[in-house]
Amino acid sequence: MTAEDRIAELEQRLGKVEDLLAIRNLQHAYGYYLDKCLYDEVVDLFAEEGEVIFIGGIYKGKKGAARLYAGRFRNNFAGGKNGPTFGRLLDHPILQDVVTVADDRVTAKARFRVLMQAGTHQLAATAQTPVRQWFEGGLYENDYVREDGVWKIKKLFYRAFWHGTIEHGWAYTPPDYVPNASVTYPEDPYGPDELLQDAPRLWPDTTTFPFHYRHPVTGQEVT
Amino acid sequence: MTAEDRIAELEQRLGKVEDLLAIRNLQHAYGYYLDKCLYDEVVDLFAEEGEVIFIGGIYKGKKGAARLYAGRFRNNFAGGKNGPTFGRLLDHPILQDVVTVADDRVTAKARFRVLMQAGTHQLAATAQTPVRQWFEGGLYENDYVREDGVWKIKKLFYRAFWHGTIEHGWAYTPPDYVPNASVTYPEDPYGPDELLQDAPRLWPDTTTFPFHYRHPVTGQEVT
Amino acid sequence: MTAEDRIAELEQRLGKVEDLLAIRNLQHAYGYYLDKCLYDEVVDLFAEEGEVIFIGGIYKGKKGAARLYAGRFRNNFAGGKNGPTFGRLLDHPILQDVVTVADDRVTAKARFRVLMQAGTHQLAATAQTPVRQWFEGGLYENDYVREDGVWKIKKLFYRAFWHGTIEHGWAYTPPDYVPNASVTYPEDPYGPDELLQDAPRLWPDTTTFPFHYRHPVTGQEVT
Repeated sequence: MTAEDRIAELEQRLGKVEDLLAIRNLQHAYGYYLDKCLYDEVVDLFAEEGEVIFIGGIYKGKKGAARLYAGRFRNNFAGGKNGPTFGRLLDHPILQDVVTVADDRVTAKARFRVLMQAGTHQLAATAQTPVRQWFEGGLYENDYVREDGVWKIKKLFYRAFWHGTIEHGWAYTPPDYVPNASVTYPEDPYGPDELLQDAPRLWPDTTTFPFHYRHPVTGQEVT
Repeated sequence: MTAEDRIAELEQRLGKVEDLLAIRNLQHAYGYYLDKCLYDEVVDLFAEEGEVIFIGGIYKGKKGAARLYAGRFRNNFAGGKNGPTFGRLLDHPILQDVVTVADDRVTAKARFRVLMQAGTHQLAATAQTPVRQWFEGGLYENDYVREDGVWKIKKLFYRAFWHGTIEHGWAYTPPDYVPNASVTYPEDPYGPDELLQDAPRLWPDTTTFPFHYRHPVTGQEVT
Repeated sequence: MTAEDRIAELEQRLGKVEDLLAIRNLQHAYGYYLDKCLYDEVVDLFAEEGEVIFIGGIYKGKKGAARLYAGRFRNNFAGGKNGPTFGRLLDHPILQDVVTVADDRVTAKARFRVLMQAGTHQLAATAQTPVRQWFEGGLYENDYVREDGVWKIKKLFYRAFWHGTIEHGWAYTPPDYVPNASVTYPEDPYGPDELLQDAPRLWPDTTTFPFHYRHPVTGQEVT
């Protein structure tokens, strides 16, 4: 191999490493914005053609993402404003990334895990939002796209898995505790553009959320 | 330094970075397979000469790993089949990697932390597997080997540390709650090949699980 | 671009990637040392001119860090010795890094999240240290400096956020549960050198801990 060829190969390989690290930062930043109900900032992490899949609904484009985050979530968790509310907890820890960057360095996929804690402190409790202490384990299987050198979220697919409370844990959570979306926008003003076919169900269902990556040693698809 | 030398040095340094990221992916994938009782896939992450150290026992070779994962765990947690069971939770979050790749890029070591949650939902509870909600904190200190360009687990040493329940926490867990292995294979059909000398004990013992790495600033061994 | 220029650019970019990974290792090692009350090792992670900001106090220099870790914490958590104590838990999981290395590769900033669990087992309980099971979520926004090729902590700013117990969770934690420091050294022998102006308050306050990084897509400051 000539020196030129070796340099070109290094540039390609290093570029993929930088991409992987940029995607981790992007997704970790997403989690930190969610903590603080910074929903405008969350929406701006998406590509124009991005989408979100959440609890059985598909939210299309940045417009769809805005309906979910800056609409439904902001209304439910943040009293309608961009930013945190006294006594409302919404921690969104993200960990355990498996990031796979395509050789063309334009698209990438990643799996992450979430260990959420959320709820309302007694000093902020009202009849509408009583004291609650819930936690939730979930997974992301996301797509990313690089546009003008900047990585953005192309498809965010969050699968909430188990749901529990500090008081009782997750062993008594009723099936379909958070039902999958059944009404679309605009009938539901915060609803999804489409319903997801064969949407995953919540715990105690335990079906596998498909892996975007092949087995690291055998190279086989794992299903 | 000549251009050729600089290129060679870049190739070596970038190779080590790629190795580090590959090992994170490998270990994170391990955790995601464990979540879903995909024990065959777990065993395939090991080198032929790999081994597992678990609760006082040493399981040798892929055969030993298969006895532990595709034998004991599959029997205990997954009703004998490869894959998850309705109402049985086995989440295996992995985080906080410190990965050290050797200069020859053939071997590596890594420390990781685990924050497990596991148990049985009331809808899946039976006399044999009643409702349970336990969690466990633990550490890995693992060795890896690169064979034909693919990183594999050479030695997986898991030290379970504390064990608790959602109901009572970890403050009342009896010492040696999960006793170290005392019977080897084949006397115990799922037992280890050897017993580990001076096996670490569980919480409330708090002895330090040795660090494979030197202090990042002083360069001293920490014991 | 000449081959020489391309090589120089690769060296710079790869250097930044290696820096980022070194800083993750440094901070993750910090967490593992804290687990085990290895406070001397923690202090040695700091630059001579380093500082710690903790619960409203600023501890200056390695001397200040030693007063906090090898003074106050060692006295409170480890019975005055360097190392863990039977039945005292102090797990310090660290995750979700967003690391930003400056182009000069001499300074860097990083955000991390912490999910702590700590307390005392009933077999180690005394009148002074009764059974306790607490957990705490927090954030780091830290500065790092590279001296003689080695990354060290320049400023560690830990913001404890919520505090709770396994028994009751975090919904009933009184405001200012851990009050901000109000007495400096030497009046308080383990006190800070200075008090932090406008110190963040604990949960149920939920104000945003400022992000050191700009929005990954828009490039805007987020406040």
